[in-house]
Formats: sequence, structure tokens, C-alpha cells
Amino acid sequence: MLSQEENELLTRTGPGTLAGRYLRLFWQPVYRSVDLAPGQAVPIAILGERFTLYRGEEGAPHLVAFRCAHRGTQLSTGWVEGDCIRCLYHGWKYEASGQCVEQPGEDESFAAKIKIAGYPVREYLGLVFAYLGEGGPPELRRYPDFERPGVIHAGAPEVWPCNYFNRMDNDGDPQHTAFTHWESSVRANGAARAPIVSCSAEETDYGLRTESAQGDGRVTTVFVHMPNTLQVRPRGRLEGEMGDAKKLAEGQFAVDRLTWRVPIDDDNCVAFGIELAHLSGEAAEAYRARAARQEQLTSPAPSDLGEDVLAGRLRIRDADPRLNTFKLFWVEDYAAQVGQGVAADRSGEHLGQLDVSVILRRKIWLRELKALAEGRPLKGWSQAQGLADGSVVEPSTMAVAEPGKASAHTLPEGDRA
Amino acid sequence: MLSQEENELLTRTGPGTLAGRYLRLFWQPVYRSVDLAPGQAVPIAILGERFTLYRGEEGAPHLVAFRCAHRGTQLSTGWVEGDCIRCLYHGWKYEASGQCVEQPGEDESFAAKIKIAGYPVREYLGLVFAYLGEGGPPELRRYPDFERPGVIHAGAPEVWPCNYFNRMDNDGDPQHTAFTHWESSVRANGAARAPIVSCSAEETDYGLRTESAQGDGRVTTVFVHMPNTLQVRPRGRLEGEMGDAKKLAEGQFAVDRLTWRVPIDDDNCVAFGIELAHLSGEAAEAYRARAARQEQLTSPAPSDLGEDVLAGRLRIRDADPRLNTFKLFWVEDYAAQVGQGVAADRSGEHLGQLDVSVILRRKIWLRELKALAEGRPLKGWSQAQGLADGSVVEPSTMAVAEPGKASAHTLPEGDRA
Amino acid sequence: MLSQEENELLTRTGPGTLAGRYLRLFWQPVYRSVDLAPGQAVPIAILGERFTLYRGEEGAPHLVAFRCAHRGTQLSTGWVEGDCIRCLYHGWKYEASGQCVEQPGEDESFAAKIKIAGYPVREYLGLVFAYLGEGGPPELRRYPDFERPGVIHAGAPEVWPCNYFNRMDNDGDPQHTAFTHWESSVRANGAARAPIVSCSAEETDYGLRTESAQGDGRVTTVFVHMPNTLQVRPRGRLEGEMGDAKKLAEGQFAVDRLTWRVPIDDDNCVAFGIELAHLSGEAAEAYRARAARQEQLTSPAPSDLGEDVLAGRLRIRDADPRLNTFKLFWVEDYAAQVGQGVAADRSGEHLGQLDVSVILRRKIWLRELKALAEGRPLKGWSQAQGLADGSVVEPSTMAVAEPGKASAHTLPEGDRA
Repeated sequence: MLSQEENELLTRTGPGTLAGRYLRLFWQPVYRSVDLAPGQAVPIAILGERFTLYRGEEGAPHLVAFRCAHRGTQLSTGWVEGDCIRCLYHGWKYEASGQCVEQPGEDESFAAKIKIAGYPVREYLGLVFAYLGEGGPPELRRYPDFERPGVIHAGAPEVWPCNYFNRMDNDGDPQHTAFTHWESSVRANGAARAPIVSCSAEETDYGLRTESAQGDGRVTTVFVHMPNTLQVRPRGRLEGEMGDAKKLAEGQFAVDRLTWRVPIDDDNCVAFGIELAHLSGEAAEAYRARAARQEQLTSPAPSDLGEDVLAGRLRIRDADPRLNTFKLFWVEDYAAQVGQGVAADRSGEHLGQLDVSVILRRKIWLRELKALAEGRPLKGWSQAQGLADGSVVEPSTMAVAEPGKASAHTLPEGDRA
Repeated sequence: MLSQEENELLTRTGPGTLAGRYLRLFWQPVYRSVDLAPGQAVPIAILGERFTLYRGEEGAPHLVAFRCAHRGTQLSTGWVEGDCIRCLYHGWKYEASGQCVEQPGEDESFAAKIKIAGYPVREYLGLVFAYLGEGGPPELRRYPDFERPGVIHAGAPEVWPCNYFNRMDNDGDPQHTAFTHWESSVRANGAARAPIVSCSAEETDYGLRTESAQGDGRVTTVFVHMPNTLQVRPRGRLEGEMGDAKKLAEGQFAVDRLTWRVPIDDDNCVAFGIELAHLSGEAAEAYRARAARQEQLTSPAPSDLGEDVLAGRLRIRDADPRLNTFKLFWVEDYAAQVGQGVAADRSGEHLGQLDVSVILRRKIWLRELKALAEGRPLKGWSQAQGLADGSVVEPSTMAVAEPGKASAHTLPEGDRA
Repeated sequence: MLSQEENELLTRTGPGTLAGRYLRLFWQPVYRSVDLAPGQAVPIAILGERFTLYRGEEGAPHLVAFRCAHRGTQLSTGWVEGDCIRCLYHGWKYEASGQCVEQPGEDESFAAKIKIAGYPVREYLGLVFAYLGEGGPPELRRYPDFERPGVIHAGAPEVWPCNYFNRMDNDGDPQHTAFTHWESSVRANGAARAPIVSCSAEETDYGLRTESAQGDGRVTTVFVHMPNTLQVRPRGRLEGEMGDAKKLAEGQFAVDRLTWRVPIDDDNCVAFGIELAHLSGEAAEAYRARAARQEQLTSPAPSDLGEDVLAGRLRIRDADPRLNTFKLFWVEDYAAQVGQGVAADRSGEHLGQLDVSVILRRKIWLRELKALAEGRPLKGWSQAQGLADGSVVEPSTMAVAEPGKASAHTLPEGDRA
């Protein structure tokens, strides 16, 4: 439970806010690489600010201010020329640094005086990262575990109408899998995951490590790279229909996944997720093909189904049985997390012993924000390697359950705390 | 005409407001019984607050707080188990009283300390009623007239984007029938209803009694059960097409109707209406079948047509001639009442002698709200019986009019005051 | 560049604001004549206020208050009777002056005491004009150039989600044609218009005269009738597909066009435009037929395409090649002007030598608003005649360009300032 003031501190990320300043000290993913073609410009919103993202004709991504310095038109509507962008309204042209280099009809000395904001940009692991903070950028943090052989797949960004901290809280929350994902687990595996009976969390030099144990002693570990990146080793989510999901569950096919929770503004957030599948040869090709097919399936949109659930128009158990596992997972998470309200009210919570990781992460965040406010040194989070290798893969389910039967939620005696 | 301050008093009904406190002293309908299946949970909004309504597996309806006490997720997305509800996020389980009885993975002593709000609920006449006020609930008010033999039908709740008092004002307003319902009357009966020439209203021990006379001396009586329930004896509204409506009009088939005007919030309201048709045997069966068929006809939505009228895209007289009478009535009322603005500005009104019932009801309301504010005793409204039996059934129309001919609105000399 | 305060002065037009008072001193177009049938009533919003516009059964347009004086219902939902309008709710009837003349069921002396606002209305050049200011209206300003022989066509009003001054600023902005309309010029003419190299503007007794020169010396002149009317002589915009556009371009077929920029409220505006085509006989008939056909083509809506461009879902160069020139022009202007934001932030601008007309017009406006605020005499703008006759018709393009090739925007050496 937080005070209203602490809750505001964690959830407000616009320019000038403490959490906004803190997040801006780290490179943040802002777009998926495959979604930005050479010569394409798009408007984006991150951390309560708008920007123009474009990819030069030779392929390099660039990020500059949202508006032209002349009369304020949205620059993304203009033309990409080489590594420059030209405004649709009167043709002013800017370099990727934001320097104006051409103003048709104006004195040549005028352009030199005009500069809009330009931001450092890098591409890594299928995502476009930008540094939006003041001063020179730090080194781009690398994730060596994801530079190993295999197939890297960046999923479609998930834009949700809730504050990013609703999703961050879920990152250290092992218990939700047994309940929120009850229906999809039962459909894919014939049984829900057994509930967690204990959970521990510790601060590390890269962020947090959370370990949870089910009633039968099986242990799962998840990792948070501060400030806003989750690393897990779940079963892959690229299966097609429920039949594929079952086959994958049997085969214990696992992937390594990194997910960034990035505020669009204080009421909306986007999750960028990448997966490394430890596959090669034909298996890798089949995986890539499955990923491509999944991208085609845009209907029904999981967020629309999630809204139906929140409005009481749809019960999760009544969702179309042909929905693939990943989409059903999405719907379930959406209902639980957007269902907390646009910004969860943490002043009315009642936290328990399974919330230790949620509590610790907020505590670390508040400590760092306090240091930032007071001008004291911040903890320098280090790069981490080999995290998932030593940890147990998220286990398959154990309890036998019948889908759609609500009483199945009555826990077996042994699972009660 | 009211002052701005008085208008605010009548129209603001959120927690802590005077009108909100007053309405919460009475059982209010919150859902239609047939719309809530055993084991189903839905989110509802009433009087500016949100709640979780669910029906236990054995059939009993229950109303508890909107959010789980743990991390604030919307409870309606979870599972109904017996007469309990379990949260989708981490499986906390609550009794209908709001008492938490299970928290997977937590110390058992923790649950006993957690209680969310729970509210008394009753079912009556096809509606789910709840008591949202403080202290113990009063007896559920009964309407013996509606417990007599016949067919009870609860219509689909009408959700409108206006303050509930716009609709309350209409309840004691006999004149609007001649004008607002001009087109539907002409279509069903070949003529509009003759205008009212006089109106009287009196306070009773159950609320108000309003009597109005048309130019030819015919009298109609309507009843308001304080604070927000209207009783009338109109012709039934379950006919299908205009042809049916004409047959009904000829046969003088009447029903007794009760309608509750309930705020959703200050900008939206819902009307719950039930009808008792004095039918038995085959006629009753035919009526039930007609009611069931009507429920299937969801398109076009009357509120959408009402919005078209307000936007100037549709004239009522140009509405599809196949629209049934009830839908056209709805469109007409919607245009007149939502057309007053989300909350009618009563400080700019110019009321006349036909507004006596509107004036009296507001006066009674303001008197009771003042007493409530000052901690003085409130009037205890009594149950009423046999109201409609002594009153004249709403008459068929008299004036001959041609549909779509605007000049037909010029009143005959004798009708002018 | 303006101060925030000056920007507010120019863009706020509701009742009581300086710009609102200033615009209300002039007759403003409020509707297109052909869109209002005899006996029809519609709700309209102009300058942040709502009104009831209706056309009497004999054909005369009238403008009265938005709401009935009785209980506040929206009058447009009622009936037009002769030159009167009757309320849908209880049948109160008003003359075009706003005087109440009938109240069914009320004492006859009551009506005489009730008067709602009524406004002077005139029809001219295919538009309905109203005078919304205080005091008696001035003479309706005439435009003799548009009373000459030929075909007058009033286009469909363009409602845009931006402040009217975004569009006013564009009126004295010759340079945008070369860039904003790059794609449509290339499609119609095979080449974009050559950029402007100089621009001059002068205040006249009717408003402003702006002259701009392209690199090859060709000069274009546009005229602003103060306060909010643009006069130009462009090529006609009534062609059908791009093929027609090319034929017209070759034939140098020009029209005279007047456009009014009218605030709906501070976040939305409407442009009313009329064109005089100097045609007679068969050519006139063909033009009228083409105009009628164009009106039928409602899909896709240019504003929807404009929103797609602003959202980054569509690049202008990728727009359907079958889009006619006028629609593509609309999309381009929409992207540039709505792309400045709902209300352009003029405090962050960097204006150049080509912005002289934009600067002068704002200066004149601010001077007049200051005089109005201080009660000093305002400049009396005079009627103008023969403006376009002495000016050069907007020339066809010169530069050779390849459509869709961004590098073509690199200007030829000679065009740089």
C-alpha cells in the first residue's frame, strides 16, 4: 500500500516529473524495427511527449521533434530525403540532428539559426531504442543472453489504456498465473497451474530476482532489469491454435523473453516484447513462418475482447474456443490489469506475503526517485548475463481441472497457506 | 423555474450529495432479473458509484464492491462460486456480505481482516433491487396492484445520456403527449391526442397524483410514488408493427405500468419499467410471445434514431414507417428530454399553468432535501393500492389530423386556453 | 511569432471574447442554401453558440435561439409552420423574430411575455448569412465580381477539427502550394508548382492583397476581404478524376472563388466556399452536371484520409490514384493545417520573408481588436470589385518532377533564395 503521493510519483512520467526524468535516463524502445520502412515517417508518443520517428532512405532510424519550427506542422506528414526530413507545409528540411538545412524562398543564413530537437537512436534485437534524457546518452544496455544463436522475434507492440505501472506491478507477480490465466492454461494443458505458496524477491545489481514456489515445490524465477524490463523463460507464445499449444506444452518448448513497459502517457502504455527461441535449421524456419502467420491474424483484437470482459459483455470462459493461447493470455492479462483502473489506486490495497516482489520493486523505485529529487547518486544498474540458464523453466501445470467449471477454483487442501 | 443552486441540488446524486443520500434511503432497481444468469457477474454503475452484481449458482442475486481489496481489480471479471465471488487476479474469494474468505497463498488469519462492501438485494416484479444507503434497509416497498393476476413483463432498461431529473420532470407532464407523441399517435390512431387544457396536482401519502383534462373533458390521471417511480395505465406497448398498434388502440387494451428513473451518474440515467397486462390463458401466452419477439428486435436502436433527430439528420415525421409504435415513442421522448441538454437548465425556464405537477414534485423534493440537510424528519411515504382502478384509462385520440402535415398542429379554437 | 496572449486573442471567438465580438460585427455564412429545404429545421453551431436554423414553408430562412423558453428543449426537433417554429415538447410556437405566439393550454397573455432571440438572415450567392452581433445589422456586403454571368456553385461546407485561424493563416500563404500540394500537382500536371521566391502584402480598403513570385517571375495574387473571406482565381476544382484534371489544366480553365473561414467553436471551424465559373450555354450545363455528380461522391471522406495521414497510417503519395484532385487537395491541406494542432501554437513559430502576408493579416486583426477593446473606431472595410480581373491566373506548374520520388523535392539551384 502506498500513499496517494507515492502513487503519483511512480505513475506520472511526463516532462519534468521525477519518474519521467528517471525513465529518460535509460534508453527506451519506441518502435518495432520491422514496422518502419526506409523512407517512412511516423508520429509517436512516448512519456507524454510526441516525436517524429523516421527511417532514412539508406535504412538508419532517426528521431526528431514532433513539429516543424516554422509554423508548427506535424513533421511526420512530410518527406524523407536521404537522412533528412522535409516539412509538408513549406518544405523546410531538417537533418537527423534537428538542424534545419533548407528553407525554400528564405535567406540562406536563416536556416543555420533553426534547430529542432534530435535524439540518439539505436536498433537492437528488432527494436528501435531512443535516448530522450538530457546530456549525452549512456551506453545502450546489451542483453548477451539474447545475442546467442536462435530465432529473435519481436512481437507486435501491445498498446493498453492503463498506466505502465499497472503492468510493472504484474511483472513480479507469480500468483496471477494460476488465476488470471486459468482458462487459457486449462484449454492448452487440460489443467490450471497450481497456485503459489511462497514468494521471495531480492535486489540484484541489475534489478530484481523473484522466486516463487508452487505447492508441490516447483520453483519459477523471473528477473527485472531496472527500471522497466522483465526477463522470463516461458513457453513460447507463437503457437497457432489450441492444438499447437498443447503440442508445445508437451514438448516443453521454452523461449527467453524480454519485455519493456513504456509509458505513452500517464493513461496509456505500450509493451515491447522480444523472444529468443533456441532453434536452428528447419525448426527455426518453421518458427519464423509461424510468427509471420500470427502477424496476419489481426481479428479479433485481444484488447477489444478485453474491453468486452470489463464491460460484462463476455465471460473469459465463454471466449471463442478457436482463440489461440497467446490472444487468450492477452485478454486475461488485459482484464486483470486494465481492470485495476486506468491508474491503479495503490492507497486502497491490502498486500500479502506473495506481494513481496511488487513491494520491493516499488521501494527501489521510490528510493531512486528520492535520490534523483535530492541530487544524490543513483544506483548504476549493471548488465546481466546467463540469468535464465540457472533457473527452472516455468513448469507445466499439475492440478487437474475441468474447463469452464467454476468450482474447480476451490483449491486442493494442500495448496492453502 | 429554479435557481442554479436548487437545480444542482436535484440533479447531483453522487456519494455525499443530498439527492444522492435521499435516493439511497429507498430500495432502487439496479438490473433486470432475466438479464442476470446464475453464475454471472456484471459491473454496474448506479448513483455515480460502481458495483459488482452477481447471481449465485443457486440463483440468489448479490451486490458487492466494484474492486477486490487486494490489488483493486474489477471483481466482475472473476468467478462466481456458490454464493461467493472470486477475483480474477489472485483468487481472493468473497462472500455476498463482502467478507473475504479465501486468499490463496496467504496466512489464513489475513482473510478475516478483509471485508469489502456488501449490499442488501431483493428481487421483485422481475427486477433486482438493492439498498445502497447507510444503516439497515427499510422494508422493500410493495406494489399490490402489480401482484394481481396477469402477465408481468419487465422491459429492456432504457439507458439515456441525460440527467434522471429530465425524465422525472416528464412524469407529471400530460401535455407532452399531444406534441412529442404527435407522429406516433397519428400513425397508430390516425390522429394526435387532443391537447390538455387544464392540469392539477396534489401531494398524497405515497407521492403525487396528477390529473389533466383535454379540451373535450376527458381526464387522465398519473401517479408518482416518491421519490422516483411513475405509475400509469397506458395502452400496452408490446405491439409489433403499426398495424398491431391500431388493433390495440381500437380494443382499448390497457396495462398498468411502473417506471423507475434511476441515475447512473449525473449525466446518464436508466429507466426500469414493468407492465402488468390484465390477461390470462391464450391471450396471456400471446402477449408473452410478443414480448419475447420484441426483445429480439434490436435494430435500429431508438436512442440512435433519437441522436439522429437531435443532430438534424432525421425528422421524426420521416422516420421509417415500419418502426413500431413503442420505438417511435422512445425516439420522440428521447428527442424532447435528451433535447433539453444533458442536465436541463431549469434557471431559464418559463413555467405555465400546465406545469403544476412538475412544480409540485420539485417543491416536495426540495422540501425533503432541506429536511435531510438539517437532520429533521422526512416524510414517510406509504405504500399505495388500487390507484389506477379508479382512474380513467388514457383515452384514444380525438382530433383528426393528417400525418406529416405541419399545419395540423394549429389547434382548434376550442382547445386554446 | 505571437505571444500566447495575442494568440488567444485571435483564436477565441465565443460570446464576449474580442475576436468573437469582432466577427459578429459582420454577416457570416452559416449554412449552404441547397442543404436547407422548405419546412426543415436544423441545429447549428457558430462562434461557440448554438442556434435553430429553419426555412419557412414559403422558402425564407430564419434563425432563432437554440432552445424553447418553456422547458429548454432543442427547437430544431419541432415543426415549421409557415414562418414559425413549434416546439416538439409542448407545442409552444415562435415567430421568426423569436416572439412566442402560441402556448397550448396556457393563458393567452402569457405568450406575449415570451421572446427568444431571433437574428437577421439573408441568402446570397447560394449561402445563408446571419448577423449575430448586437445592434442593427450593417448592409450585407456584396461581391459584384460574383454577380456576373456564369455558373455559381456553392461547395459542400468543410468542417475541420481545428481553430479557424489555422485556415486563415493559410489564406496568405502562397508557398504551401508548392509543397503541401506537391502530390496532387504532380498527379494532375506531371509536375509540382515551382516554389515561391518572393512575396509581398499590402493592406487595402477591403482587406489585404498578397502577391507572390515564382523563380521564373510568374506572379500570383490573392485577396482577403476582412475579416475572414478569401478571394482567389484558381483552376476550377470540379473535375472528376485525374484525367479530367489534366484536361482542365491544359485548358487553363479558371474560376473565381470566395471562401469564408467561420468558427464553429474554438476547436472546430467550417469553410464555406463558392465558385463562379465563367461559362454559359452547354459548357455551363456540363459544369452543373459535374458539380451534381461530385456531390454524390461522399466516400472516402477527405477528412478521414487526412486523419489517416496525421496518424501515420497513410502517406499522401500512397493515396488511391483514383482520388480526384479536389479530394487530394483537401487531404493535403488538412494534413498541413490540422497538423498544426487544434490551435496552432504561434508563440513557437519562426517566420520568414515569405510569411509577410500572414504577419500583416494578424497585425491588422490585432489592431482592430485593440480598437474594439478600447472603444475606438474600427476601420470600415469597403466592398471590392474587379479584383481578380487585373491579376494573373494561378499558373500551371513549371518544374518537371517525378511523382513519388522524394528526391525531386531538392530544388533546382535557381529557385533557392
